[in-house]
Amino acid sequence: MLPGPTNVPNRVMNAMLAPVINHRSDDFRTLYKSIVEKTQKVFQTSNDIVLLTTSGTGAVEASVVNLIKKGDKAVIPVNGEFSTRLADLIDSWGGQAIRINAPPGENPPYDKFEEAFDKNKDIKALYAVYNETSTGTTIRYMDKLGQLASRKGAYFIADAVSILGGDELPVDKWNVDICVTASQKALAAPPGVSPVSVSKRAKKYMQENPPPTQYLNLKRYFKYYEEHFETPFTPALPLYYAFREALDMVLEEGMENRIRRHRICADAFYAGLSALGLTPFAKPDARSNMIIAVNYLPGMDDKKFRGLLSSEFKVLIAGGFGDLKGKVFRVGSMGEVGRYHVMRTISSIASAMNMLGVKTNPEATSVAMDKLKALG
Amino acid sequence: MLPGPTNVPNRVMNAMLAPVINHRSDDFRTLYKSIVEKTQKVFQTSNDIVLLTTSGTGAVEASVVNLIKKGDKAVIPVNGEFSTRLADLIDSWGGQAIRINAPPGENPPYDKFEEAFDKNKDIKALYAVYNETSTGTTIRYMDKLGQLASRKGAYFIADAVSILGGDELPVDKWNVDICVTASQKALAAPPGVSPVSVSKRAKKYMQENPPPTQYLNLKRYFKYYEEHFETPFTPALPLYYAFREALDMVLEEGMENRIRRHRICADAFYAGLSALGLTPFAKPDARSNMIIAVNYLPGMDDKKFRGLLSSEFKVLIAGGFGDLKGKVFRVGSMGEVGRYHVMRTISSIASAMNMLGVKTNPEATSVAMDKLKALG
Repeated sequence: MLPGPTNVPNRVMNAMLAPVINHRSDDFRTLYKSIVEKTQKVFQTSNDIVLLTTSGTGAVEASVVNLIKKGDKAVIPVNGEFSTRLADLIDSWGGQAIRINAPPGENPPYDKFEEAFDKNKDIKALYAVYNETSTGTTIRYMDKLGQLASRKGAYFIADAVSILGGDELPVDKWNVDICVTASQKALAAPPGVSPVSVSKRAKKYMQENPPPTQYLNLKRYFKYYEEHFETPFTPALPLYYAFREALDMVLEEGMENRIRRHRICADAFYAGLSALGLTPFAKPDARSNMIIAVNYLPGMDDKKFRGLLSSEFKVLIAGGFGDLKGKVFRVGSMGEVGRYHVMRTISSIASAMNMLGVKTNPEATSVAMDKLKALG
Repeated sequence: MLPGPTNVPNRVMNAMLAPVINHRSDDFRTLYKSIVEKTQKVFQTSNDIVLLTTSGTGAVEASVVNLIKKGDKAVIPVNGEFSTRLADLIDSWGGQAIRINAPPGENPPYDKFEEAFDKNKDIKALYAVYNETSTGTTIRYMDKLGQLASRKGAYFIADAVSILGGDELPVDKWNVDICVTASQKALAAPPGVSPVSVSKRAKKYMQENPPPTQYLNLKRYFKYYEEHFETPFTPALPLYYAFREALDMVLEEGMENRIRRHRICADAFYAGLSALGLTPFAKPDARSNMIIAVNYLPGMDDKKFRGLLSSEFKVLIAGGFGDLKGKVFRVGSMGEVGRYHVMRTISSIASAMNMLGVKTNPEATSVAMDKLKALG
């Protein structure tokens, strides 16, 4: 129950055993084309798709180095580890990140973004980490950010690494110019490949202003795809096969059903854990359906608590990040997550709390089970 | 029989099915440490090892962006596609590549490098593509280049992507500051991970002068390894398991035996194909033991010839790169290559030539077999 990499279904793991083929062959072209088309469906976009052999961080970096030039202004909400990293990368790459800060667990009010655009007439891009894994928050006004950027002629970039495939993100409808995700989170594939979608206008910009590097230079990927349906550099072939299989599973379930399942499981987690006597870390209107971050109660030592969960119940969850170390724990509720995962995790957490001498409400599991009824 | 990705043994493929574990867990730390130690043995080095989730190109780029700053001079032999790309990357990243050119199929005379250092007192680095995959040439004075760089106080960087694990490269003995390779060539693992070794002095430089990016920023990798035996970003876990298994196979065979096997197979290829009436593309003193590049004879149409090999004999080989398209074919002789691969490939080539109406010498296969006797 980690915030990624998440459990990978056997069907997806076994897909990796397909023979290693030449990445300059028709067999590969068929594979790559099918991945691109399936990714477009999952992203709900007709934009170009590039599949990078990197972690999510590599793909997020591609969204910066292909777009930001020296002095370019980019607005970005900052309320946790990953949004801080992205803002820092924009600065270190030579851009000027205009940070709209909020305390961890909250999102900045939407008006602040309007203000930032009013104060700065030359903003080139609006970056947003849709789901902040470090604190369990999700931005619930991404559609409005997309409209704002579009109205102001700025590019809109969604870092959707830890959320795409588990919550709403209709890329075209929300005017997302660059959407970045990774294989090992809500899409439930093994880690190592990361898809990026690029709108026509962003693509044109990248083609006319390529970065001084090779590996994350998207212009090369566009060219190889257009001319040959290939990648410019050797792809991580086994992970491509696995990723295609994972996309098939997503499309078989249907995005709407999948998002619903994630929401119901998150509801059950928040309700069940609250009934146990715990409080979610994130403010109600910012709570993530992917990462359930919860405050520790007195008596719950992070190391002891997670140690018990792991050794006695074989349930792996994560601790807090940076300043939140020892103060919160985080449960990943992504990918394959279902009734069994939620019930087993909550009941194990209750038992571990009891073992540490923290009193819990015995009705908590029933509260969670009630919520899970919505799964049907 | 492609110049990579090469065939992957089943044992290595199956290793990918190990469960996806948390990359912030002791299980992962044990895995990563063992990969680092085995890689050190294969590289014959006590230097730091970083394992990147990228293709070989990503790792080669890391050797540039972590070392080269604006205006830095770097000497580099250029005699094919991959050395041209590397020189271009040095320039586009802001460095000044001092190209020591040679015609494709040849290496520049060693004296030219001495001259370059004499003419330029401020050369920071000497880059060399040890094995040029596009033309089937190998630099046979890498040890002297290492000595020269060391004497002049310059860093020595070996791009050994398509050769390490199949030919000599004792990193410490040859004074290689940064050695870069990839999983899917002579090491016979699936593509997607690329190891880089970094000497103490190069590491110190990188730590004091990190690049303005994240994903290929080696300083971060050093820090995470020293503090936690972890990678800073989510690793491509299944490929790590496979790579460890491939390293085990290399170490079980022993580097000396493995290099000998590659040399004997290459000898058999060159002798057998020459006996057929063909001529190797590369000059004798520059011929690669990994990539056998051969000139087409009149009547051998590239598309038809390779088409026949593929459709009738299920033997996949590569054509020429860039200007050499249609003029040469290339056989990968790497990784798992052995008696069977050599004999089957030569006999299929002979048959395909005959089918195209090109006369061949019926004794050619015996010539190859004679050479293979050295395998024992």
